[in-house]
Amino acid sequence: VNEADELRNLLQRYARAADQRDIGALAELFDPDAVISGTRGEQPLDAWLDTMRSPRTFPTSMHFLGDPLVALDEGGEQATLDTYAVVYQLGDRDAGHADLTLGIRYVDDVVRSANGWVILRRRVETLWMR
Amino acid sequence: VNEADELRNLLQRYARAADQRDIGALAELFDPDAVISGTRGEQPLDAWLDTMRSPRTFPTSMHFLGDPLVALDEGGEQATLDTYAVVYQLGDRDAGHADLTLGIRYVDDVVRSANGWVILRRRVETLWMR
Amino acid sequence: VNEADELRNLLQRYARAADQRDIGALAELFDPDAVISGTRGEQPLDAWLDTMRSPRTFPTSMHFLGDPLVALDEGGEQATLDTYAVVYQLGDRDAGHADLTLGIRYVDDVVRSANGWVILRRRVETLWMR
Repeated sequence: VNEADELRNLLQRYARAADQRDIGALAELFDPDAVISGTRGEQPLDAWLDTMRSPRTFPTSMHFLGDPLVALDEGGEQATLDTYAVVYQLGDRDAGHADLTLGIRYVDDVVRSANGWVILRRRVETLWMR
Repeated sequence: VNEADELRNLLQRYARAADQRDIGALAELFDPDAVISGTRGEQPLDAWLDTMRSPRTFPTSMHFLGDPLVALDEGGEQATLDTYAVVYQLGDRDAGHADLTLGIRYVDDVVRSANGWVILRRRVETLWMR
Repeated sequence: VNEADELRNLLQRYARAADQRDIGALAELFDPDAVISGTRGEQPLDAWLDTMRSPRTFPTSMHFLGDPLVALDEGGEQATLDTYAVVYQLGDRDAGHADLTLGIRYVDDVVRSANGWVILRRRVETLWMR
C-alpha cells in the first residue's frame, strides 16, 4: 500500500467514524494538538470532539467523500489533502424533519505519526447547502 | 498499477456493468460461488444475476461510488473493501415516475483469481433512501 | 506517487479549476490541440475555454468526481480515464433560480507531456439531468 492509499484510507476512516458517531475512532485520526476550523470558528480537537458527542440533530448521516487532491511533501512526512465531499444529513421523516445536504471542501494538513497518518489541521469550507 | 488500484478498478467496472445492465460483465466480477446479501436476503450469484436480468423499474441508473476503505490481507491474496455509494435510480419523468436515490455501503470480501480480483462475498447495506 | 495517483490528481485539479472558473489553470490540464466533445458538439480547446469564460448561469458549481476507471497503455505514456461525476450547478436562490444536478461520464484520452499528464481528447456524456 503506497502513501496516497494510506492517506485515502485515513479519509474513509473519518467518514465511517463520523457517521457512526464513534468518538474514540475519530480521536485516533487527529494529532492531539489538532485544530479544526469551520463554521464554528477555530476549535482545538477536544472541543470539536465535544460537539460531535452532543445529541444529533439528524439521526443518520453519510459523509460521501470524493478523491483527495494529494500534495505530498518532499520528505514524505507531511502532506496536504484537499477533498470534496457531499454530506447527507438525513432528518427523521416520520417526525416531519427535512434533510440537509452540504457540499464541503476539507483541506487537511496531515503528518506521519507513530500510529500512521493523522490530521494536524483541518479547514472545513461549506461550498453550498440545501 | 498497484493492488489498491486494481481493487478500485474492480469496483468501477461493477458500476458501469450495473448501469449498462451488462450481465456478462457483471458475472466476470464475481467468483462463481459468490454470495450477495442485502434487502433480498442472501442470494447465490446466479439468482442475483437473474434479478439483474429482470425488467428495470427505473430506465436509467448511476452507481456513484466513493473511494473504498481497503484492508489488504498479509498474503496479498484477499482483501476487504468497504465502499460508500450513492445510487441514482432515475424514473421516467414523461410517465410521471419519481426518482429514487439510495445511500449504500458495500462490504466486499475479494480474492485474487486467475482473472484478477473477484468478489467472493458482498454485503449490501442500505443506509438511507429518498 | 504512482501513475494512477497522478492521473487522479489531474482530474481533481480539473474539478477545482472548473469550480473556481480559473481558465489559466484549466488550460494547463489539456494538450494545446485537445478536443472536447459533448452537448455543444466537438470543440477545440480554445473555443471550449471561451465558453468557460462566458458569464455563469449558475453562480456556484461543484464538480464531484468519482474514482476513475484507469486503463494505462503498455508504454505508460498514454491512458484512458473513464470517470463518473455528479455536477451540482447551484442557482441563486434569493433570485428564485433553481439548481441543476447532472450525472456525467467523462471519457478522457490522456498523454504524458513535459508538464505531466494532460487531456488530449475528452468526451462528455450526460447520463441524466435534474
